[in-house]
Amino acid sequence: MSFLIDSTPRKDGFRMPGEFETHAGTWMLWPERPDNWRNGAKPAQKAFVAVASAIAQFEPVTMCVSQVQFRNARNMLPGNVRVVEMSNNDSWMRDCGPTFVVDGKTARVVDWDFNAWGGLLGGLYFPWDLDDQVAGKVADIERVDRYKAPLVLEGGSIHVDGQGTLMTTKECLLNENRNPDKTQAEIEDLLAGYLNIKKFIWLNHGVYNDETNGHVDNICCFIRPGVVALTWTDDKSDPQYEISQENYEILQSATDAQGRKLEIHKIHQPDPVLIRAEEAEGVDAVEGTLPREAGDRMAASYINFYLCNGGAVVPTFDDPHDSLALAELQKLLPERKVVGVPAREILLGGGNIHCITQQQPKA
Amino acid sequence: MSFLIDSTPRKDGFRMPGEFETHAGTWMLWPERPDNWRNGAKPAQKAFVAVASAIAQFEPVTMCVSQVQFRNARNMLPGNVRVVEMSNNDSWMRDCGPTFVVDGKTARVVDWDFNAWGGLLGGLYFPWDLDDQVAGKVADIERVDRYKAPLVLEGGSIHVDGQGTLMTTKECLLNENRNPDKTQAEIEDLLAGYLNIKKFIWLNHGVYNDETNGHVDNICCFIRPGVVALTWTDDKSDPQYEISQENYEILQSATDAQGRKLEIHKIHQPDPVLIRAEEAEGVDAVEGTLPREAGDRMAASYINFYLCNGGAVVPTFDDPHDSLALAELQKLLPERKVVGVPAREILLGGGNIHCITQQQPKA
Repeated sequence: MSFLIDSTPRKDGFRMPGEFETHAGTWMLWPERPDNWRNGAKPAQKAFVAVASAIAQFEPVTMCVSQVQFRNARNMLPGNVRVVEMSNNDSWMRDCGPTFVVDGKTARVVDWDFNAWGGLLGGLYFPWDLDDQVAGKVADIERVDRYKAPLVLEGGSIHVDGQGTLMTTKECLLNENRNPDKTQAEIEDLLAGYLNIKKFIWLNHGVYNDETNGHVDNICCFIRPGVVALTWTDDKSDPQYEISQENYEILQSATDAQGRKLEIHKIHQPDPVLIRAEEAEGVDAVEGTLPREAGDRMAASYINFYLCNGGAVVPTFDDPHDSLALAELQKLLPERKVVGVPAREILLGGGNIHCITQQQPKA
Repeated sequence: MSFLIDSTPRKDGFRMPGEFETHAGTWMLWPERPDNWRNGAKPAQKAFVAVASAIAQFEPVTMCVSQVQFRNARNMLPGNVRVVEMSNNDSWMRDCGPTFVVDGKTARVVDWDFNAWGGLLGGLYFPWDLDDQVAGKVADIERVDRYKAPLVLEGGSIHVDGQGTLMTTKECLLNENRNPDKTQAEIEDLLAGYLNIKKFIWLNHGVYNDETNGHVDNICCFIRPGVVALTWTDDKSDPQYEISQENYEILQSATDAQGRKLEIHKIHQPDPVLIRAEEAEGVDAVEGTLPREAGDRMAASYINFYLCNGGAVVPTFDDPHDSLALAELQKLLPERKVVGVPAREILLGGGNIHCITQQQPKA
């Protein structure tokens, strides 16, 4: 059951909690489409199993899987992961999934419009009708009521501190391929109403060559209220340098909804990660889906980690910077167990661990 | 999550409760296939909505729906019915769905083999692979563990009193198209282990012309332990007369697992219900699916009702016997509200209200 509520969460006393607050569980979607995931998605499926298994140490995980892949997913996943049937166009639960809001007693869902990261203006595939139904289906399974927000938005394009602050990027939210009919002020008004936000921190760009049009969740995140982590490079010749530098300056001069200055931690990125020829060859070349070409640089970042109850699941890239990133995050998150999961196969599909997960906060 | 348990419910202290015991909720499947349901299943869908709405007065209802019909079902069903995506071959949750067992603290699921009422020897359609996955998928959604029983069985072919007695028919359970390699004693052993049964009452035949090979749930059921209701006719020229008479005699001489004689109540059937020409014409004629032909007699019976928390949802046929059946059932079930739902459109698909529902007992 799920009733559609004709109101806004703010009016009803609901807010979006920070990811670091206690979860009821985690939602994921199973990768399958061979025009995005190499070799029939078999390597990606193993990586998703590793991520689900890592999170399931800390909290309940639900994997949503199409009819065709259901039995294979059920066989590959451990018994402590719940598997439910759900059709989809791809496997980015962060972006097409629900945003949960809470009022201290109950959880509800905000269901955004989804257009596959740009619709007919540079979106990553067509159609996206099944993805757009995912949030409502999750709400029904969980028997929580639902708000329908009149805004094209992906969950990965926003981060909140749960205390009234939202962090996002202009590159994504003000892109003409998302909400061309809305001004920045109108977008802020909608986010304020649907997530209970009082203060916006607008970064400029996301990670270099990020196909999402610069989702914030790959470049910067809240560790806890007042504390953020930013992907970084010391290599001034890397196009990422200027992007991170500019965002660092914005963060330095920002204050949050509580009037605090931010504590900013730099997490050095891995060395450039390029698509290999044999990786590109494993992807079906299909018109209308973003091609995967050998030599293309991928938007690799340690910031695309996921916080769960008592844990942090962090992508690794078989890179010399892996151990440094894990150690720094462990220092920033002393109350959590930091777990690295090899994530190259997820990155090859266009995102990372944060992009394939969505938290359901404890009501 | 759902772990497969390599044991039997009896060994683990679980039993199948009677339908009249308290439920956690009801499971249903949405009708859709046009080679079984007339006019693209539109009239049947309205009837299923009426049944789900009637039950939802009393307890939570979950409707499982294919990808293709999901949005239509969500729109047609009231908000207090939960809708979840689940692929299927048809809509008989009683028969392909799980049998829940309980131990006073926990619920688990028994997952039988399903072969569409006879497999390649007179089964009603082909294939049935999606139906056969339904029980496991329900278990996963509910996060309950699962026993896999090595027996072809439909939920509608058994009734239990929750106190060690199981009632079934030889026509179905001993049919060569179900478990030809097993003797009656071997089938009893399996049912004893998986449902915690001590005493079997074997009726002979089910309702005349019942395409399920005589499911017990269309002819006789437990009102409560020690009390049964049997479909009946006073018309000696009706082929149903002899069937009911024979079963009456079996029931009269039977005792249950507690050593009790049974109190037997006759519920007079409706007048013969025949498929009309315009009804038959609305069904796609497809090789491999049971045809629906004008003039065929359907297996109409009031016994195919469903008990839910504080309620009984009973099929009606726009027949002079309707009010008598409702009144008699209300007298037998004074603690429940008896609700009639017009069910001709369900009957046209080959079953009735009990066949399209499956109870999940309270753990």
